[in-house]
Amino acid sequence: MPTPIETEAAVGYNAQLARMRHSASHVMAEAVQELFPEAKFGIGPAVEDGFYYDFELPRALTPADLPEIEQRMRRILASHAPFIRASWPRIQALTYFRDHNQPYKVELIESLTDAEVGIYQQSNFLDLCHGPHIENTEQIGPIKLLSVAGAYWRGNERRPMLQRIYGTAWFTQDELDQYLWRQAEALKRDHRKLGRELKLFMFSDDVCSGVPMFYPRGEMLRYLMESYVREAQERYGYQHVWTSHLGRVRLYKTSKHWYTYRDDMFPVMAGEQEQSEDDAYMLKPMNCPHHILLYKAQRHSYRELPVRYAEFATLYRYEQTGALTGLSRVRSVTQDDAHAFIAPEQIQQEFDNAINLTQEVFETYGLHDYKVRLSLRDPEQKADYIGSDEVWEHAESALRAAAERRGLTYTLGIGEAAFYGPKVDFMVHDVLGRPWQCATIQLDFNLPENFELEYIGEDGQAHRPVMIHRAVTGATERFMALLIEHFAGAFPVWLAPVQAMIIPITERHNAYAQQVLAKLKAAGIRAEVDSRNERMKAKIRDAQLQKYPYMLVVGDKEAASDAVSVRLRTGTDLKAIALPAFIEQASTLIRTKSLELWPTPTHAQ
Amino acid sequence: MPTPIETEAAVGYNAQLARMRHSASHVMAEAVQELFPEAKFGIGPAVEDGFYYDFELPRALTPADLPEIEQRMRRILASHAPFIRASWPRIQALTYFRDHNQPYKVELIESLTDAEVGIYQQSNFLDLCHGPHIENTEQIGPIKLLSVAGAYWRGNERRPMLQRIYGTAWFTQDELDQYLWRQAEALKRDHRKLGRELKLFMFSDDVCSGVPMFYPRGEMLRYLMESYVREAQERYGYQHVWTSHLGRVRLYKTSKHWYTYRDDMFPVMAGEQEQSEDDAYMLKPMNCPHHILLYKAQRHSYRELPVRYAEFATLYRYEQTGALTGLSRVRSVTQDDAHAFIAPEQIQQEFDNAINLTQEVFETYGLHDYKVRLSLRDPEQKADYIGSDEVWEHAESALRAAAERRGLTYTLGIGEAAFYGPKVDFMVHDVLGRPWQCATIQLDFNLPENFELEYIGEDGQAHRPVMIHRAVTGATERFMALLIEHFAGAFPVWLAPVQAMIIPITERHNAYAQQVLAKLKAAGIRAEVDSRNERMKAKIRDAQLQKYPYMLVVGDKEAASDAVSVRLRTGTDLKAIALPAFIEQASTLIRTKSLELWPTPTHAQ
Repeated sequence: MPTPIETEAAVGYNAQLARMRHSASHVMAEAVQELFPEAKFGIGPAVEDGFYYDFELPRALTPADLPEIEQRMRRILASHAPFIRASWPRIQALTYFRDHNQPYKVELIESLTDAEVGIYQQSNFLDLCHGPHIENTEQIGPIKLLSVAGAYWRGNERRPMLQRIYGTAWFTQDELDQYLWRQAEALKRDHRKLGRELKLFMFSDDVCSGVPMFYPRGEMLRYLMESYVREAQERYGYQHVWTSHLGRVRLYKTSKHWYTYRDDMFPVMAGEQEQSEDDAYMLKPMNCPHHILLYKAQRHSYRELPVRYAEFATLYRYEQTGALTGLSRVRSVTQDDAHAFIAPEQIQQEFDNAINLTQEVFETYGLHDYKVRLSLRDPEQKADYIGSDEVWEHAESALRAAAERRGLTYTLGIGEAAFYGPKVDFMVHDVLGRPWQCATIQLDFNLPENFELEYIGEDGQAHRPVMIHRAVTGATERFMALLIEHFAGAFPVWLAPVQAMIIPITERHNAYAQQVLAKLKAAGIRAEVDSRNERMKAKIRDAQLQKYPYMLVVGDKEAASDAVSVRLRTGTDLKAIALPAFIEQASTLIRTKSLELWPTPTHAQ
Repeated sequence: MPTPIETEAAVGYNAQLARMRHSASHVMAEAVQELFPEAKFGIGPAVEDGFYYDFELPRALTPADLPEIEQRMRRILASHAPFIRASWPRIQALTYFRDHNQPYKVELIESLTDAEVGIYQQSNFLDLCHGPHIENTEQIGPIKLLSVAGAYWRGNERRPMLQRIYGTAWFTQDELDQYLWRQAEALKRDHRKLGRELKLFMFSDDVCSGVPMFYPRGEMLRYLMESYVREAQERYGYQHVWTSHLGRVRLYKTSKHWYTYRDDMFPVMAGEQEQSEDDAYMLKPMNCPHHILLYKAQRHSYRELPVRYAEFATLYRYEQTGALTGLSRVRSVTQDDAHAFIAPEQIQQEFDNAINLTQEVFETYGLHDYKVRLSLRDPEQKADYIGSDEVWEHAESALRAAAERRGLTYTLGIGEAAFYGPKVDFMVHDVLGRPWQCATIQLDFNLPENFELEYIGEDGQAHRPVMIHRAVTGATERFMALLIEHFAGAFPVWLAPVQAMIIPITERHNAYAQQVLAKLKAAGIRAEVDSRNERMKAKIRDAQLQKYPYMLVVGDKEAASDAVSVRLRTGTDLKAIALPAFIEQASTLIRTKSLELWPTPTHAQ
């Protein structure tokens, strides 16, 4: 039996898992060889979450072939065959694989310069491999073959297309089951799929790949997300500003982004009216230089600090087309971005304020599982960082103190600070445990220097402020991807673009349905009437697929009693409820941004 | 005495006014000649609202010289001198002006090719002029000299700089007084001046001339304006969408804007990733193509129509630097733009809906004085317009019917329709009677063709929808300029970025001031505390200059009784009011978007 390793003393565990999976790929190759004695073998490494092996086979495999291969693998595993390593002289290996008609192995050996090459064998399968492997097939945990796909030899599209079988292996059945469930869930929750199904957003190559456009329901979701953060930011002392979507090259020369960040910016715009390179325009990839211009245009007293400017501007970044994925990697990034201009002695209080705000927002969304990483300077390389020793030490200890006061689980990244200041990053784990980079709080001693910022201190003298760059959800687009996948599209009531779908039982009930609609709207509840010529069951099914929190079925009985029959999207039937009572209950859940769909005892979510 | 013309049977009145002002400029020239016999004369035309004359004089004039010139003019006017016209042979005129050392007149005559030139004389002043003039100086109404400025001869900066005196003249003293009051008011209300004083917005050449950036108070004003229109649009059946700030050249080729509108668009962006001209990006100058892409990405049934997409996207237009003025002519235009996709038979109901919405919004802002212009096609040139006769006739009569049903004062612009459809434009007159182009409602038979849009009719067949382009306030930036000037920066309470300034009498009262602040904030009232080390009077004066609706003075008496002493920005002192009563009254005014500052009997605004 394999030895389960319970602790995540990560490195050892992961190395062992990879070794076991690599061995499983050899076993899979042996099973394939049994089925297809003429198979030619490519390579078979462990990868994240599993392994694969590439084959040249006499016919195309289909998913239907996988159970048979799996069965043969299980037989081999049960044979308790040891993995035996040998070192062969290069020439011996070449001869062997040539004799066995294995051109890919021959090519691999030819590309090696070593005098000897590693050979592994288990039961009837011998492979070129430098290992390491586990000792015995017995140590391979539960396996599952996942899919088959084409893969060019050596990733080169001018070389032969081989067939790749993906599989996974874990130490315990429980781990395997969990993994398979997570995979199935992730597929169901894929925000690109749900984005289409729930009519949230679309992409058009006529606009820009990587720039989503939002249908009414997606726009409502954006609007609700941003309105909530705006309201929270106001409570935490932020003021909102508006600074457009472009800037001149000369601005980015002053900020130095022109020299360090230009490849990530969209190409410049220069026409007849732009006389020099400095005059040309660029879409802005961040708000800092603009917020600095606003700050600098007025005189500031120490009494006003912290001055906190926040803006939901859409920023544009020139990502490579290949790197784009749905909403999670886009070229238009609507950050909930803010910059605080503070006196150096306010660092700790400002960290507290930013961390409190971040935690409040995460809790509202029910994202209770997040980790924090503090990036500090390398104390051996002080010359690489700008700002005095004193300021760095104060800032770093303020960061750690703030994290500890708030009971945050944090890891330290020594030497991971930017040259301009230390930072805190928040990594949120969704309901499937997958990490998403969201909030960041970064100190900056550099931009205030570049732009020669000042405030007038209590002593009447000019002093240089410190800047804090800060984002809470990060970007509306990516955070929306997180929310869609975390909630599987079944948003909390306050966040659902359509909160209630009114379903008249027959056409006769349309008039009452419209009355109900008017009352819900007057109460600020986002509702619609499904007046299509469809059967009620079909309307309910469609509404459930659209994940509307509430379906309000109305017929004679409801019309007679000013009521609605409430079904939750979970399937729970609450039966008839007086309309005012429904409105009151739903309004309370919305106002309090509750994560509950309906209060217990009919609790469901 | 001059003949006052009361009716605005415009053309005749305006021509007569211009003739009288032109004559006044000759009289001014005579007065200057009396003062400076060596004066050399340029030209002296009537302009909008007045006249000017350019002179070369032995010394620089200052405003202090104007009263003397005015006095001499009045003497000449009182002399009842006739304006006498003569025709001189070109050579006679040349000789005369050479002999009298008038090089500019000589140059003017040299540029003429006529055999004879016009000469006008009144009392002792003789001028080259083709007229016409009034008959007698007696007919010149009340005059006022306004300013003196430098002006290059013939507008050419390489020619001599002359001195230009501006003046105005009207038929009656009342008209002159009104004009001078409007001028003084316009100066006080100038949105660029108030924008600085009230800390609303700024411009930076490091970003883009013509692209304003908004300080927190200006952003709040934008936000409140846009939130109100958003809420109203939702009530009128609009759905909001989000479609980014750019598009590819190929999109603008399909929409045809590339061929007709390109000079008004910012230069293209093309980098390594853009393989062809079609792939390059452009900042979007309008939303229509993007909204069309959203519409087209889904199948639409006649049941859904009208589909109305609204968006507050900032559009970018490549205006010439010289054309930019404050917020009223900008390069970043945040339109409250919407596009309705409708069945042809819905034209009338859609016009009604759009006009109703527009009127509601104007009334909310207290803009009761607006005029409407219907632009129709030229019935003699039907071939210049796309769309069938039937559709045009239906559309135009629907437009007129909608305007009449709503009791709108409208003028007709026959032949002023765009080739793609008729339109309605709203011209709002501010409190000084100045017109501002705001709302527009335009039918479009063209873009649905270019993009081959469809909806499925009741017959199950595909039909082509009609589009309506529509804006209510027009653009946030320009409408903000209008509101600032209309209200002279004293916004209605609901729209004031800061609604109440709390003024503690001494430092001792800061704690109570903070309690008041917390209660106001909890009630959703935007308030601040002025805790500077300044005397109370200075704080009140500053608050009045900042035009905060309410100043809440708090001292011992107020702290003891949970009250605030309320002063309105108009200067009215309401004395002590219980804090809950103040909050309730202010909240009501805010919720109802009242234009009243406080209810009568202490009515003031």
